[in-house]
Amino acid sequence: MPDHFQLLKTDTATAARRGRLQTRHGVIETPIFMPVGTQGTVKSLTPAHLREIGSQIILGNTYHLNLRPTSELIKELGGLHAFMGWSGPILTDSGGFQVFSLAKLRKMHDDGVEFQSHLDGKKLFLGPREVMTIQQNLGSDIAMVIDECPPWPCDRDATAEACARSLRWAVKCKEIATDNGFLAAGHHVFAIVQGSTYDDLRREAAESLAALDFPGYAVGGVSVGEPEPEMLKQVGATTPFMPVDKPRYTMGLGTPPQLLKMVALGVDMFDCVLPSRVARNGLVFTPDGPMNLKNEKYRADPRPISEEINNYTTQFSRAYLRHLTVAGEILACTLCTLHNLHFYLDLMAQARAHIEAGDYGTWYRAWVERYETGAAAR
Amino acid sequence: MPDHFQLLKTDTATAARRGRLQTRHGVIETPIFMPVGTQGTVKSLTPAHLREIGSQIILGNTYHLNLRPTSELIKELGGLHAFMGWSGPILTDSGGFQVFSLAKLRKMHDDGVEFQSHLDGKKLFLGPREVMTIQQNLGSDIAMVIDECPPWPCDRDATAEACARSLRWAVKCKEIATDNGFLAAGHHVFAIVQGSTYDDLRREAAESLAALDFPGYAVGGVSVGEPEPEMLKQVGATTPFMPVDKPRYTMGLGTPPQLLKMVALGVDMFDCVLPSRVARNGLVFTPDGPMNLKNEKYRADPRPISEEINNYTTQFSRAYLRHLTVAGEILACTLCTLHNLHFYLDLMAQARAHIEAGDYGTWYRAWVERYETGAAAR
Ligand SMILES: [Zn+2]
Ligand SMILES: [Zn+2]
Repeated sequence: MPDHFQLLKTDTATAARRGRLQTRHGVIETPIFMPVGTQGTVKSLTPAHLREIGSQIILGNTYHLNLRPTSELIKELGGLHAFMGWSGPILTDSGGFQVFSLAKLRKMHDDGVEFQSHLDGKKLFLGPREVMTIQQNLGSDIAMVIDECPPWPCDRDATAEACARSLRWAVKCKEIATDNGFLAAGHHVFAIVQGSTYDDLRREAAESLAALDFPGYAVGGVSVGEPEPEMLKQVGATTPFMPVDKPRYTMGLGTPPQLLKMVALGVDMFDCVLPSRVARNGLVFTPDGPMNLKNEKYRADPRPISEEINNYTTQFSRAYLRHLTVAGEILACTLCTLHNLHFYLDLMAQARAHIEAGDYGTWYRAWVERYETGAAAR
Repeated sequence: MPDHFQLLKTDTATAARRGRLQTRHGVIETPIFMPVGTQGTVKSLTPAHLREIGSQIILGNTYHLNLRPTSELIKELGGLHAFMGWSGPILTDSGGFQVFSLAKLRKMHDDGVEFQSHLDGKKLFLGPREVMTIQQNLGSDIAMVIDECPPWPCDRDATAEACARSLRWAVKCKEIATDNGFLAAGHHVFAIVQGSTYDDLRREAAESLAALDFPGYAVGGVSVGEPEPEMLKQVGATTPFMPVDKPRYTMGLGTPPQLLKMVALGVDMFDCVLPSRVARNGLVFTPDGPMNLKNEKYRADPRPISEEINNYTTQFSRAYLRHLTVAGEILACTLCTLHNLHFYLDLMAQARAHIEAGDYGTWYRAWVERYETGAAAR
């Protein structure tokens, strides 16, 4: 076992795992969901709110922070933790995904990717050297390697090429983080397994990266437009070949049932903008599926979003939350985001408890069934 | 002395007063600033934030709440306190001011004003009967009479006519609140003194309304476009003729120095959208004048907004707040609003302490001088 990750229990009926990850800013109990703080803020919430709802770790976006206010400025101001007032662990992505999804005029080179900022068209370059420097400037507890994320669908040759390039960049990232003492100081660097829909390419990528002994591993290239069964198949084709004694992270996913299904496949860490993005549109999660607060039927509904959930938002009536949403009030964003993120964090806390209790498989299937039945009935 | 208002101390060098107002939802120490909760929320803050910054009482807008979600719905859901999760006192205006500033196609009648909603053009009517019913539905601790607020400038005849109509409506409002038990239940109704720039009309209005023995009195018709000296002159021409043993409220004002100047003229209560409105545009208050966080010079400034002020927002750097503001993040609104409202509430707490200490006059003049010198130097 490496020193920084403890595998406390593995479920017998599923591949679910209960773990504990040590970082420079404290311990993370897994499985865990990580709220996304794109531009140095989890949109509409204060750090005090994040603590209140039980956030253990949050995510920052290298691409966005590097454009504005720049990683150099954040470094000058003491790093991302000090800058945004968050003293818990922070994971940062490499920015590679946003280069492919947001930036313009991309041009691939062996040592990185050239692109134009989506904000002002400025020419920029991100490769292993750049992303490791930026994440060091930010003071990330968990930095991600830069990789090439193939689109979906992607042909086999292009996928194999992306995997090969991603492997070369991962080697380079680890070398940089070793040479400059980033890893020795207790920061972690996670590698990313690509391979699109090709099981053998995913296995090969997982095994090659495993041999490099990274502190953690991510499943990349999912949630890029593929249908859910395909997504789950890809995750299921990857986790068996990821090291058992390292944390596993699926990037950019998903709905509450998807999280539970991926926990059952042996995934430990998740991040997703979905719960906060839909919150800003008045959609909130309940154990009986999502609820659209804009619906006229909640106009005079005195009940909380859910009787079973206890957070700051569930002290208010659906009628009040609907009023705020319809009136376009900022407080609607804050309260709905707080609720949705708490819902995700609480769901992961329940998952941990059920893995510990040894009944994860039956529990999660019943949970998903109730959620999907409720969603269908709305 | 009436039972609900205690005049604890009157300053000797100025007309400043230190008082205590009893309401159905608790005691208010005056002088006091009231954050404005237009649509059932003080924009971008939770009720917990309002408590944290020391809000004693907040304001609700009858015009807006009556259009959406309607006062009937709020009544059905237990009143405005329960609806918005605020257990402290609430003052509501009568909606008259918004009818004149927002609504379309106004038509005056003896028993009220006919107008079209600015939201959907629906035809509505507000008179003494309607505004007292609405404010009773809301469960206001302090309800305001409906009045006619003359524009600025306004000729003498039109002003006299508005005063006469306002007096008739005030009489009617008090009659309704007496007959239906609203006053007997401990709700307060405040009358509003109009009179535009005509000192004798203001005096006449104040004296006629004083004779009606309302629980409190407001100076109305200020902050309608007139320059500051004119505004202060009007307030100064009104307060001497308002009852000494009742709370005095100046509606819809003002900047920090204006508040202090009006306290010196014997005003006890204030409300204003200024601190929250400018906060949403990145303008924050300091003892050395307002600070525009969008200014490039704060890009790398590690200092808090002010070293002398302690609230949730002052734990963050100017650089971080500037980043959030420039990036258009909701958290910028929340943090800047929290700071500005705390600044106003804290200023009133300081004013109360200096009235008690007997040095209000010298203190407030020095405070205003520092603020205005700092503002000029920015
Ligand atoms: Zn380690
Ligand atoms: Zn009384």
